[in-house]
Amino acid sequence: MLTYTTGEGNYKDWILGEDEFCLRHQGKGESIFCLANGYMGIRSAHEEPYPFQTRGLFVSGCFNSSNNETVELPNGADTCEMLITLDGELFSMTTGKVTGYSRKLNLYTGELIRKLRWVSPKGRGYELRFCRTVSRSNVHAYGLKAEICPLDKAADIEIVSGINARMTNSGVQHFNDGTKKVLDRQYLYLDQTTTQSNLTLYHCCGSKITGGTPGERSFGMQRRKILETVRFQAEKGGKGCYEKLAVLYTSRDLAEQDEEQGKSLVLEHLENLVEKGYDGLYEESAKAYAAYWKEHDVRVKTEYPGIQLALRFAQYHLLAMIPPDSRSSIAAKGLTGEGYKGHVFWDTEVFILPYYLFNSPAKAKQLLEYRMNRMERARRNAGKKGYCGLMFPWESAESGREETPLFASMDILTGKAAQVWAGIKEHHITADIAYAAWMYELATGDSTFLENGGELLIIGSALFWRSRSIYAKDRSRYEIHDIIGPDEYTEHVDNNAYSNYMAHYVTRQAIHLLRDGDGKTAVRAEEYFQETGILEKLEDFADKLYLPQPLDNPEGVLPQDDTFMSKKILDISGYRNDNIKQTILKDYSREQVNNMQVLKQSDVIMLMELLPDLFSRKIKMANWEYYEPKTIHDSSLSRAIYSVVASDCGEPKKAFASFLHAIAIDMGQNPYSSDEGIHAASMGGIWLAVVRGFAGLRIQKDTLYLAPCLPKEIEEIKFHAVYRGKKMEICVSHRNIYIESRDSSEIPVKIMGQVYKLTHNLDIKY
Amino acid sequence: MLTYTTGEGNYKDWILGEDEFCLRHQGKGESIFCLANGYMGIRSAHEEPYPFQTRGLFVSGCFNSSNNETVELPNGADTCEMLITLDGELFSMTTGKVTGYSRKLNLYTGELIRKLRWVSPKGRGYELRFCRTVSRSNVHAYGLKAEICPLDKAADIEIVSGINARMTNSGVQHFNDGTKKVLDRQYLYLDQTTTQSNLTLYHCCGSKITGGTPGERSFGMQRRKILETVRFQAEKGGKGCYEKLAVLYTSRDLAEQDEEQGKSLVLEHLENLVEKGYDGLYEESAKAYAAYWKEHDVRVKTEYPGIQLALRFAQYHLLAMIPPDSRSSIAAKGLTGEGYKGHVFWDTEVFILPYYLFNSPAKAKQLLEYRMNRMERARRNAGKKGYCGLMFPWESAESGREETPLFASMDILTGKAAQVWAGIKEHHITADIAYAAWMYELATGDSTFLENGGELLIIGSALFWRSRSIYAKDRSRYEIHDIIGPDEYTEHVDNNAYSNYMAHYVTRQAIHLLRDGDGKTAVRAEEYFQETGILEKLEDFADKLYLPQPLDNPEGVLPQDDTFMSKKILDISGYRNDNIKQTILKDYSREQVNNMQVLKQSDVIMLMELLPDLFSRKIKMANWEYYEPKTIHDSSLSRAIYSVVASDCGEPKKAFASFLHAIAIDMGQNPYSSDEGIHAASMGGIWLAVVRGFAGLRIQKDTLYLAPCLPKEIEEIKFHAVYRGKKMEICVSHRNIYIESRDSSEIPVKIMGQVYKLTHNLDIKY
Repeated sequence: MLTYTTGEGNYKDWILGEDEFCLRHQGKGESIFCLANGYMGIRSAHEEPYPFQTRGLFVSGCFNSSNNETVELPNGADTCEMLITLDGELFSMTTGKVTGYSRKLNLYTGELIRKLRWVSPKGRGYELRFCRTVSRSNVHAYGLKAEICPLDKAADIEIVSGINARMTNSGVQHFNDGTKKVLDRQYLYLDQTTTQSNLTLYHCCGSKITGGTPGERSFGMQRRKILETVRFQAEKGGKGCYEKLAVLYTSRDLAEQDEEQGKSLVLEHLENLVEKGYDGLYEESAKAYAAYWKEHDVRVKTEYPGIQLALRFAQYHLLAMIPPDSRSSIAAKGLTGEGYKGHVFWDTEVFILPYYLFNSPAKAKQLLEYRMNRMERARRNAGKKGYCGLMFPWESAESGREETPLFASMDILTGKAAQVWAGIKEHHITADIAYAAWMYELATGDSTFLENGGELLIIGSALFWRSRSIYAKDRSRYEIHDIIGPDEYTEHVDNNAYSNYMAHYVTRQAIHLLRDGDGKTAVRAEEYFQETGILEKLEDFADKLYLPQPLDNPEGVLPQDDTFMSKKILDISGYRNDNIKQTILKDYSREQVNNMQVLKQSDVIMLMELLPDLFSRKIKMANWEYYEPKTIHDSSLSRAIYSVVASDCGEPKKAFASFLHAIAIDMGQNPYSSDEGIHAASMGGIWLAVVRGFAGLRIQKDTLYLAPCLPKEIEEIKFHAVYRGKKMEICVSHRNIYIESRDSSEIPVKIMGQVYKLTHNLDIKY
Repeated sequence: MLTYTTGEGNYKDWILGEDEFCLRHQGKGESIFCLANGYMGIRSAHEEPYPFQTRGLFVSGCFNSSNNETVELPNGADTCEMLITLDGELFSMTTGKVTGYSRKLNLYTGELIRKLRWVSPKGRGYELRFCRTVSRSNVHAYGLKAEICPLDKAADIEIVSGINARMTNSGVQHFNDGTKKVLDRQYLYLDQTTTQSNLTLYHCCGSKITGGTPGERSFGMQRRKILETVRFQAEKGGKGCYEKLAVLYTSRDLAEQDEEQGKSLVLEHLENLVEKGYDGLYEESAKAYAAYWKEHDVRVKTEYPGIQLALRFAQYHLLAMIPPDSRSSIAAKGLTGEGYKGHVFWDTEVFILPYYLFNSPAKAKQLLEYRMNRMERARRNAGKKGYCGLMFPWESAESGREETPLFASMDILTGKAAQVWAGIKEHHITADIAYAAWMYELATGDSTFLENGGELLIIGSALFWRSRSIYAKDRSRYEIHDIIGPDEYTEHVDNNAYSNYMAHYVTRQAIHLLRDGDGKTAVRAEEYFQETGILEKLEDFADKLYLPQPLDNPEGVLPQDDTFMSKKILDISGYRNDNIKQTILKDYSREQVNNMQVLKQSDVIMLMELLPDLFSRKIKMANWEYYEPKTIHDSSLSRAIYSVVASDCGEPKKAFASFLHAIAIDMGQNPYSSDEGIHAASMGGIWLAVVRGFAGLRIQKDTLYLAPCLPKEIEEIKFHAVYRGKKMEICVSHRNIYIESRDSSEIPVKIMGQVYKLTHNLDIKY
């Protein structure tokens, strides 16, 4: 079982743990306890080998396509495996007797610690403690420590560990065999180069015995493996301690160096790290974590169990997934697993970017730069499909081309693969990215951003939408046909509410940019897009783009698309709480689901989350009530958004109920939820539900806006935010909003409809 | 521990078993208990998954090169894995309590049976029995059965099993992703195509419940995997029984069919097999095994434990490794593991072919045809290296080109790979193959064989040797310089005794063919090799080729090469009995070993085994005594040959001692000996030590020759032999030789120097 309350004292609500080892369900812990620093992620597979283990090491943005399969983040060599032999008996939690097992991820320090007591099959007792850190202070470094305390008599310990490049992505090998050797007669070195993208991973590791009496050390090689065997002794009641330090670089990091320089840099780093030892590595990393939490920890006063921890869990993973620079962006599973092949979806801009926008705007900008660096490709994508402007890929990797596989898993009976329409028809990503760029602009006022491509991105998106629409002469309006909205259970629809409204919004912002610019913007845009009269064209498009309106019956409901309301309604209650997702597809074909009012997630509610000012509370609530019972929530993006919109509507009970579902997505007890990695967007969603939802923080036009709607279970929420460069700490309780800032600039803050000026503090009762 | 005496009654000396499960040492059992039928081999990894397991499925001759790595036999999809859940608890021998474990390979029936009693962690008791058969009667079929008997109360059983194409060769993936589907709503189908050689493996399997109450069955797919989940119930004391039947075809087998026809053939075969069930499959296969043993079983009367079993173990594997046709030959590990990449070495012609020559001459011919089919390539190989005639590759796979990797494992300190000289300098293979062809000719008198390429093979080998030698004018003789003999611890030597003598022998036979032919042979040879005056050239070469002669001091010792005798002698006793081979290379570099009188195996003794009539007993014994203490026996080819030559010398004690070492190579208790597969040549060696050595059977010129030398531990040896088409059974005891034949032809048999005529029987006292 996962444990949520083992953190004590200073670590109260900082520790996510588990109190038993379950052979079958290792994937869950491997993902949710994953250690990552944005540069690399290492799945928390146990040191000793077990069946059902999925070891994984992923480097952000290091993609490869093996034998023309869909490009993916390859699983790099493993260094974490240790074969531990204690007095001649191989340590395994499946043999002998294990008591006192616990594994704890300390979110405050980023350290994973496992403890247990093992009585071997022959009856000897040992206490074992394993710790592991992937450094937050230096992204190339990580380390492990194994401490063994013999309980009955002095013990002979043998550890075999090394670098194992036999790892695959579910059987797909992405690397050619490389060089392996022992450096300076003590460090293990192995490099591996991807088969197609020609990226090299340089692995180097060393070890030392820092407890007990060191014995002999020897080295060995096997195919795609280099190993050391270390023997040492520990006294009864004493501690035998093996530390393994490792560094990982890629050829991208060493592009400036020639090969020899690069390798010495790697070795030097390792030497330095081994000298520091595990504790030194840990301390530096923990310090960096502490600094992060000091600036970003969202504190929730509540008696309700697990909420504070869930927020920190989400923030931990939001930090773990953010790359060091704009060469890469955030994968749908972060760096925690093979799921979705490490591709970048709208999840990043819509669910994760807001967190960074209010916490580290530079990181939000970095995420947008990843897209802007691929704008040229987006222009080509559009051109190839016969559209104008920019067309961003539904799934993005290195090049910025469309990476969505054309075919999904095969039909089990026919062996025919089902076509995946998302890459072909799910176009809202292009609006989502432009929306995020505009939000960035609003929140930061960073004018260079617009000039350096931001305005082209927004205008390009608008141009795309214009070309993506058709002009329906009979109705004298632009319509968008044959599209897929966020709700992927409804494909090939016309005038999807989400897509039309988002296209419209983005076009309005583009017009704004074109009008308000000193004319240079229009020149730049016309030049870049090789198109004249852009402003006029967009004005015409915005004026005439069809925006579906709320119905009279059912009152206030915004139809998800032209045909949705005429579809059959199905009782889906049985599918809503399954441990396994998408079970409806076992009973109904995709075609059948497509023809019912069955939602994976809601387009309309999503729209109301992003553009809340377009709709009255009443309309929003009508849609919430209409769509929620029809939503299976088979997407991890669903619950948090329902929560935010319920908060917006002043429905804290509903908001809180949805929120509880949202925090359970990865952190709940469902043992299957996270096998292939955590749900990156859901981490952003948790933060959104609390800060955007309960605390009601958002941007309304040019103003920071606060309209809290605290559920009764939450007494107070205290969080950091940056707006227009101004750092502040905001504390929201049921009757009070307190804002504090050390910056002396003045900004307007709109609270519950009324505008205040904030310099150093604001204390508003409501 | 391995057990040798568990066979009882009719199965006495037919069962090799083990009585405990050792997590760390699974490789040994996976290899020695491997089930194979020459077409395919399946390593005997346990059904349920464990770390340290190496599953393997290899199809003879289906090679692939992944990303330009050395070509190898790829590890095909696995169908043997089963996840077994008993009343909600996952079955694993590492959890709960296992008693009464035994695993037995019945050599008589070819069936592998595992039995055990398991008390689950929750305290429930079950008896489990697993059996497995790879069919001997139809090479495409195999099956598994799991029988579960609940001891305490009725049990719910769930088995998840399917086809898993994630298998790799130590991390190297040889297959592209293929199609997977459920056929007829009940059979699992998966195909996989090699990345470079474009060979497709078609896997199809089905299951049925033949004990207990069947429950639901469902199917699932994952990346490179298709699975079924079967639930059933068994009564207390009753038997829940799951049978899995499978067929495997390759695109080579279905080359005549179009794809659809091929697939229906596969499905039809499976349907038929599932109808028969496991027991039907087993019975047909066991019948074919029985027929084999009836014709080929070597029976040894002895009180000495393990000898009869060892012979049958060897014969079992000799049968398991022989391919169905001449498209492929025998790999150094048969079909039992990844070792040596499935390549074909001289092991086949020199160690294994003699067994077939006297047991199934057609199979011996088939092995030679594999070489003859690649003669054109051997001619090109020779030409490319500047030689004449035929040059066979040291390691051969599909094409017949040289496949020996140029570089071996890297130097652990420098990361530089050591050059492998075998492929460049170990040329005796070309003599070995020609020698084997000549032996085939002598044993069968099959004249069409010579006409259809056999004579070219022998003449081509002789031509190669002539071009491979240099004429030393000062000594007026041909010499062969810079060569490696079978003893690979001595590289780059001149006038290696083995190579020079074998070259000479082969040249003599070539001359014989050229002289005795009606002139057509010479014409054919001159045409094929584009060379004139071949006979004269070879006569000159044979007359003047230097053959090293026994020394006066040390008396009678034939120097292994020109410089060997001047090298330093090292006490190697410490290395001779290591569980791990080649440990001398941890203390000395290859260069240092090369400069000492240290042998991996003996060239001179090998020579005396192949050409026994060239040397007197005294000379042979002098060499045995000189070389044996200098031989580490790091090659599995070594001990059996020492045994044969000791028998030849009338030294049964020495012969028996060497023989005991030889039978322990795979069947001994050393848990590391066979991880990467059994030693195919050693299987031939065991038979050679007994039939060629103790019973003294060989061909001397045109006559079958018998000169027994039974060790006192063996009372009698009874074996089958075919010579010149005449089948006979030979029984050798200490004072008597009895030969019986049902054929009415008459042949001369030379026994201890005296010639007898054999028609139906011969009873000779000696």
